[in-house]
Amino acid sequence: MAAFSESEIDDFGARAEAMVNALAKISAEPNRLVRLFLSPEHRRAADQVAAWMRDAGLDVSEDALGTVRGRLDGEKRLLIGSHIDTVIDAGKYDGPFGVIAGILAAEHFVRAKRRLPFGIDVLAFGDEEGSRFPATLASSSACAGVFRSENLRLADRNGVTLADALQAYGKSPDEIPTAAYQRGEAAAYVEVHIEQGPVLETRSQPLGVVTAIIGQTYLNMEFLGEAGHAGTVPMLLRRDALAGAAEAMLLGEKLARETKGEVVATVGRMAVAPGAANVIPANVVVVFDIRSGPEAARAKLADALKAGVREIADRRHLGLTITSTREVGTTPCHPHIQDALADAVRALGVEPLRLGSGAGHDGQAMAKLCPIGMLFVRCRGGISHNPMEYASPRDLGLAVAALIGFIERFEPASLTAR
Amino acid sequence: MAAFSESEIDDFGARAEAMVNALAKISAEPNRLVRLFLSPEHRRAADQVAAWMRDAGLDVSEDALGTVRGRLDGEKRLLIGSHIDTVIDAGKYDGPFGVIAGILAAEHFVRAKRRLPFGIDVLAFGDEEGSRFPATLASSSACAGVFRSENLRLADRNGVTLADALQAYGKSPDEIPTAAYQRGEAAAYVEVHIEQGPVLETRSQPLGVVTAIIGQTYLNMEFLGEAGHAGTVPMLLRRDALAGAAEAMLLGEKLARETKGEVVATVGRMAVAPGAANVIPANVVVVFDIRSGPEAARAKLADALKAGVREIADRRHLGLTITSTREVGTTPCHPHIQDALADAVRALGVEPLRLGSGAGHDGQAMAKLCPIGMLFVRCRGGISHNPMEYASPRDLGLAVAALIGFIERFEPASLTAR
Repeated sequence: MAAFSESEIDDFGARAEAMVNALAKISAEPNRLVRLFLSPEHRRAADQVAAWMRDAGLDVSEDALGTVRGRLDGEKRLLIGSHIDTVIDAGKYDGPFGVIAGILAAEHFVRAKRRLPFGIDVLAFGDEEGSRFPATLASSSACAGVFRSENLRLADRNGVTLADALQAYGKSPDEIPTAAYQRGEAAAYVEVHIEQGPVLETRSQPLGVVTAIIGQTYLNMEFLGEAGHAGTVPMLLRRDALAGAAEAMLLGEKLARETKGEVVATVGRMAVAPGAANVIPANVVVVFDIRSGPEAARAKLADALKAGVREIADRRHLGLTITSTREVGTTPCHPHIQDALADAVRALGVEPLRLGSGAGHDGQAMAKLCPIGMLFVRCRGGISHNPMEYASPRDLGLAVAALIGFIERFEPASLTAR
Repeated sequence: MAAFSESEIDDFGARAEAMVNALAKISAEPNRLVRLFLSPEHRRAADQVAAWMRDAGLDVSEDALGTVRGRLDGEKRLLIGSHIDTVIDAGKYDGPFGVIAGILAAEHFVRAKRRLPFGIDVLAFGDEEGSRFPATLASSSACAGVFRSENLRLADRNGVTLADALQAYGKSPDEIPTAAYQRGEAAAYVEVHIEQGPVLETRSQPLGVVTAIIGQTYLNMEFLGEAGHAGTVPMLLRRDALAGAAEAMLLGEKLARETKGEVVATVGRMAVAPGAANVIPANVVVVFDIRSGPEAARAKLADALKAGVREIADRRHLGLTITSTREVGTTPCHPHIQDALADAVRALGVEPLRLGSGAGHDGQAMAKLCPIGMLFVRCRGGISHNPMEYASPRDLGLAVAALIGFIERFEPASLTAR
């Protein structure tokens, strides 16, 4: 096992930060970072990544969805990836750092002339954010062999379909099946990513091992009361839809808190009608976003919330319609990958905190192909999808070192044996 | 005292309903009732009211604000009025019925050739709703001698100022001071109006005696939290502005309920930012509309609410700004007028329920001139400012009879003696 000196870690961090900054300069707009799937900016970023891969000693290719692949030879393949597309007005770490970490780790083995008992593919996906087309994970879905061809007809806001955009990028939709890994070829998929949340910062830990990409339930609740004059209708004769919704929101918060970190529940969007200050609200819609690692905990909370809100609506004589508008299952990270990542983190003198990923990632698609794992890096204030997004060079360097340590510990057979 | 037979009361009701329906046909739009201050529809409605007043044996004049006055001679004057303007898409009883009740009551004394120890002025005001200009009660303010001349510069949505609209209506703004009653000339102002709330219906009473036109406090509360990813920020690390606002809304409701009818508190308008389903709300604004008869009860509730919400914000680590955006004092109805109205109601075999008026009325301006009183009429479902607005002919007839009974009992000296 390699033991890294402080200066080696700082060197990884400095190189990673410089590369992050170089990619951040590639944007559709001068004053904010915007890099959409299959755009000219995607092309320039892909070319930059390909150049870095070649410099690192990797064989570079590009698949039918524009995913750049940097290859270190070997029969069984460890896939290390992330994405180089961004949201609109993005931060610069979300995605690119995972690709860069993969390149720097692979380069470490090339330079050390160390033969590994497996090959490595560093993957730079182009469609994780879903900022251009109304779907997401097209690139990783193609690699996993689960790309849905009907998505080729989806159009961006200018009416350009994914099929047209691929052709304009020099690709042929007919070749998408060739992007898929053969079953048995891919041993595992591992991704390094900023946390996009405050847990590591709060616990003063630079790195964390992801236990699962957590699942999501959307519950749309519509409360129907009766409009009335705010001055003339006595409190006890009211059917105030907003008061019912307020009680429902606090119930959701209370139930989530009682799970002690297992489930989070949020209302971020609501609509109040008629919406005049002197009229009792007749119609209120709230959307609950409920997430958790364990499927059972999420279902239990959703059931308790629905039952409790029905009781609130009954007591207040309000009409109530509850609709489930999204249901995405939890994607677990493989325990052996988690343990190997934790060992690598511990070897750096860092406590390997385990935590769920509340945000979605390419691993959700790659899990259809092979076992997955993720390593999280602390980001300041938990802020992401925002130009304020920041991770320190020191933490980036530790992440690269931990990824190298993981590769040294990785045993493809341990996954199939289970 | 007159004692009315069932058929006399039904006759009053049938005539009142026919007159209400006749005015309801005078609208700016074919499919909904819209009659704005100083509009051609106002002119036609005023002409109709003037014709009814002449038929009733009253001397008709029109003042500088277009208020139609029907006069029965006498030195001290009892003013009986309401308004003939409407909101947009109005009901037909709100305002017109009060004018019609005054005409029918005055006509009763003319026909009976009964000399009263005071004169009567039936007043048909034209600007109670404030639907055209961004101010209200211009007509009654002029009668009360408190018209603010700077309001002449206010413009409607077409840019026409009140001064221009008055001139187009054939009036001269210079003559507005002549519309004011002399101090001592007006003994009292009394208004009959539909309740616009559900209290009388709930208590199964056709009529109610108003204790006060209740005062109003608007509190604008802005909660400042921290935006965050709905999936990645643990419940205990959140600063959710919407959760804080929900707690504040329920506190307002609880405090108002605890007053057992003395104070009502409503949140009808709120804004949530950024307003995406998967983002923890960072900024929420709610507007509390707080009303009560007793000033002290309203102030006490507002103070308790502010203190409680500050505690909520502190506990949740939210920023909080509270701004008072409106403060209108309570206008009490004179106890002797209340008692005389109650006696007249009781003489009809009806229990004289006392209640506050949660909505505003011309009496708020007239109270600057003389003691005031109001009689409320039950309306179906408490619905008003809506084409569904309805009061039964029987209840309208009872209201006319009660107004006549009040006039018989009215003693101007009882008010000045107090």
